[in-house]
Amino acid sequence: MAVEKVTPCTPNEVTEPNDDVSRLDISRLSVSLTESPKALLAPETLRFGMTFTDHMAVATYDPSTGWSNPEIKPYAPLTLDPASSCFQYCSNVFEGMKAYLGPDGKARLFRPELNMRRLERSAARLALPPIDGDGTLELIKRLVLTEKRWIPTLQGYSLYLRPTIIGTRPSLGVAASDHSMLYVIASPCGPYFPQGLRPVSLLAVSDKVRAWPGGTGGYKVGGNYSPGFLPQRVAAKQGYDQVLWLFGEEKRVTEAGAMNFFVVVARDDGDGHDFITAPLDGTILPGVTRASCLALASDPAFNNTAGLNLHPVERTYTIQDLVQWSSQGKLMEALCIGTAAIVAAVNKIGYEGRDVSVPEHEAGLGPVGMALREKILAIQDGREEYEGWSVVCE
Amino acid sequence: MAVEKVTPCTPNEVTEPNDDVSRLDISRLSVSLTESPKALLAPETLRFGMTFTDHMAVATYDPSTGWSNPEIKPYAPLTLDPASSCFQYCSNVFEGMKAYLGPDGKARLFRPELNMRRLERSAARLALPPIDGDGTLELIKRLVLTEKRWIPTLQGYSLYLRPTIIGTRPSLGVAASDHSMLYVIASPCGPYFPQGLRPVSLLAVSDKVRAWPGGTGGYKVGGNYSPGFLPQRVAAKQGYDQVLWLFGEEKRVTEAGAMNFFVVVARDDGDGHDFITAPLDGTILPGVTRASCLALASDPAFNNTAGLNLHPVERTYTIQDLVQWSSQGKLMEALCIGTAAIVAAVNKIGYEGRDVSVPEHEAGLGPVGMALREKILAIQDGREEYEGWSVVCE
Repeated sequence: MAVEKVTPCTPNEVTEPNDDVSRLDISRLSVSLTESPKALLAPETLRFGMTFTDHMAVATYDPSTGWSNPEIKPYAPLTLDPASSCFQYCSNVFEGMKAYLGPDGKARLFRPELNMRRLERSAARLALPPIDGDGTLELIKRLVLTEKRWIPTLQGYSLYLRPTIIGTRPSLGVAASDHSMLYVIASPCGPYFPQGLRPVSLLAVSDKVRAWPGGTGGYKVGGNYSPGFLPQRVAAKQGYDQVLWLFGEEKRVTEAGAMNFFVVVARDDGDGHDFITAPLDGTILPGVTRASCLALASDPAFNNTAGLNLHPVERTYTIQDLVQWSSQGKLMEALCIGTAAIVAAVNKIGYEGRDVSVPEHEAGLGPVGMALREKILAIQDGREEYEGWSVVCE
Repeated sequence: MAVEKVTPCTPNEVTEPNDDVSRLDISRLSVSLTESPKALLAPETLRFGMTFTDHMAVATYDPSTGWSNPEIKPYAPLTLDPASSCFQYCSNVFEGMKAYLGPDGKARLFRPELNMRRLERSAARLALPPIDGDGTLELIKRLVLTEKRWIPTLQGYSLYLRPTIIGTRPSLGVAASDHSMLYVIASPCGPYFPQGLRPVSLLAVSDKVRAWPGGTGGYKVGGNYSPGFLPQRVAAKQGYDQVLWLFGEEKRVTEAGAMNFFVVVARDDGDGHDFITAPLDGTILPGVTRASCLALASDPAFNNTAGLNLHPVERTYTIQDLVQWSSQGKLMEALCIGTAAIVAAVNKIGYEGRDVSVPEHEAGLGPVGMALREKILAIQDGREEYEGWSVVCE
């Protein structure tokens, strides 16, 4: 079974040839440092995505001249025409990445080439100007090195990076943006959920739909997110932390909030556990952490060391399957998985006025969630080498 | 049959009570006029959405203080934090409206209260702060009066208005934007399609999908538009002007480009023509021009005067129905209908390598399209009074 299907790309979405105007030339980078660097905050006081570092990276694309020389400059507001595509038609895509400081004092990124390929595909899906993922990655590395003092050293803490591309065509005609801006901002952060490893609860939602075949759910497109805010508010009012997105008449389980979703189910043949997530059918974001968890789950060495026997499975499954597995005592763990949260446990899923319960564990995470989280963190912060996943910025 | 279903609203989407902080107080409007007004362009040189007037209207929402005092001020770029919701999660909604100058020299809007109710619903769908549609309409009227010299007087020309709301919460946490900015920009414009009344061609698309039940297709949400740019580009490369969006396995006909879509089909009983469009099932934008055309088509006086016998029908129908109606000689007209284009004729629809042909007419539009367009234009520019649809700005 293939577990690394991170690159679905239909013929229409191929970016144009990588000619001169679509190259981001990092050799022409200009760096302008702030004269008033901010004081660092105590890591414990950080709330996700609220604090930003001193600098940002920026480049702009003009259809006649291609990508501008990239810049690293003091963090500052953007100044944009009110008719710009980014406001009117939301031709905006982004990535989420994290930089860690290794025991060797070097800054590291986690599988950043996967983010870059996805960024290229996302931009192509919205017919934005072509993205030079390799050049963008070099720019990101330079920003990380510039902001190295901002990378928290507390375990589980990191410097969250947000590469963003916005359409800047200043016209109301409903057409692709032929101008764009690429920028990268950085935010020191701790655990995504304020409660740390305490499990989150989900409310299953089917009246609102996050993504559909032929839409943009398989791309990291800004417009995928705001339609989820209202269901999220409804879930919060009912006492749930996040939404579990169901799809279709059969109520297939897809994603949780803005994360991929996995379940650990005891196998009928007694041969360990199925580690199940929805397949990349266009409604599911091809998450980097998702791909990494699937790869680890299929690695005998990881299973042996962790005392696990996981069978990774990408398959469609429904909320009724979840209800049944729970009532049969087979549903061992449910996990939200993504760059920001890494691996978070789920303890209950509200559905039609009742809660599907998931076993709770003293440590917050169950054995599968804990082993995956620990392993990924160890790879991310450079304590363990694994398949070249951790990439040093230099 | 109900033809004015412009207000579908599920319980979850009701905006919060219109208390003090959610009121836009037009009595506190400040007006600051430009010192360097621009020269007007010759109407014939205008391209849709490319030229903007001297001023814009702006108000901002802060969760602790509510709506700021509204302002009319010189047209200028927006200055926004790069972490703002509008860039990251696309919490952006908008409206399209037109101001005309009547024979009495007064500026007029067309059924603006429908736009304001839709703007309120769109904002609520993205969990944006509550919109005061009535206050917003007053602000728009003031802007129109300020920019009156920009309203073109050539028939079929108007001042296009773009009320826009963007989320301005400067945080990467995936949550509703509790801050927002409302702004209105204005653009003098002529016919939406550069070819004027010449018919447009459509390419039927089913591999990409514009909207889905439970999504945001029934709201004027910015994120609905950019996913259409890639299919639009594919259509253009194949020589078609716009996309005809199909939906589902049965390939239901939904919208055309960013417009509602209608067909005129001869009835089997010989009693005139069915005037058919897709129903408001959540995948269709409840267009103001759509509602107006349905209302006119059900008005005996309009039918009599125009020599028509239309039976408006909101029903699902498929591309196979279109193919069949065309081959039987019953498909008399196909029309794209929206604020920008008003009523545009379609002459062919590409589907699976063949073209579904639609009769062409010397005048560009057929009798139904022409009668609707003429009537709506006459109401919009104040030559005819009809049901209070034309609202004077004063």
